[in-house]
Amino acid sequence: MIEKVNLQEKFGLFEDLWSPMIISEMNDSYVKLAKLKGEFVWHDHENEDELFYVIDGDLNIKLRDGDVHLSAGEMIVIPSGLEHKPVAKEEVQVMLIELKSTKHTGHVESNLTKSEKEWI
Amino acid sequence: MIEKVNLQEKFGLFEDLWSPMIISEMNDSYVKLAKLKGEFVWHDHENEDELFYVIDGDLNIKLRDGDVHLSAGEMIVIPSGLEHKPVAKEEVQVMLIELKSTKHTGHVESNLTKSEKEWI
Repeated sequence: MIEKVNLQEKFGLFEDLWSPMIISEMNDSYVKLAKLKGEFVWHDHENEDELFYVIDGDLNIKLRDGDVHLSAGEMIVIPSGLEHKPVAKEEVQVMLIELKSTKHTGHVESNLTKSEKEWI
Repeated sequence: MIEKVNLQEKFGLFEDLWSPMIISEMNDSYVKLAKLKGEFVWHDHENEDELFYVIDGDLNIKLRDGDVHLSAGEMIVIPSGLEHKPVAKEEVQVMLIELKSTKHTGHVESNLTKSEKEWI
């Protein structure tokens, strides 16, 4: 029997910021949850689009030509190759969907880079 | 400049039931919104997993070995090849993520089958 996933239950299982946790997989993609607060690093994913969907809170995604502000219930797809930098004044809960091959900070190495793939 | 998508704005743009509307694309997948009420047909997608995420309302997904009940904030991935039948007593708003190649009712032809790919 396949099982459903309750997002709030999963958000209750981790506290680390900027550490996306895998909750499901479909085809060649992972569905991840992340808690973000503060500033991430500028990066891009050369060959992979990345979806951000805000579950709770407010997220600012800086782009080289402006900012996109996302509130709960809003999503955006960052196309491959586009530099972006997520920033959140207060903690924000997001769902990410990206190819399994996607690296956390693209080709940028930072002290925020996570290379492990962790399920919750 | 890339644009964000507000899901409730998009849900306000259509009324047809069982007619998933495309709101975004990433990699080889579409993100779709659908309003469901009543009973769909039993079907499967031979080679494609399909994600259901409930935005508002309650959705029952019948499987051959039982039912999965999803409320708002809950998701499930139906693996390729698994027969399923969505059922909703009251109207439910869902987000679907599936490969661009995925057909609405799999290889089943029904009067509910939609073959057009429509963006909103």
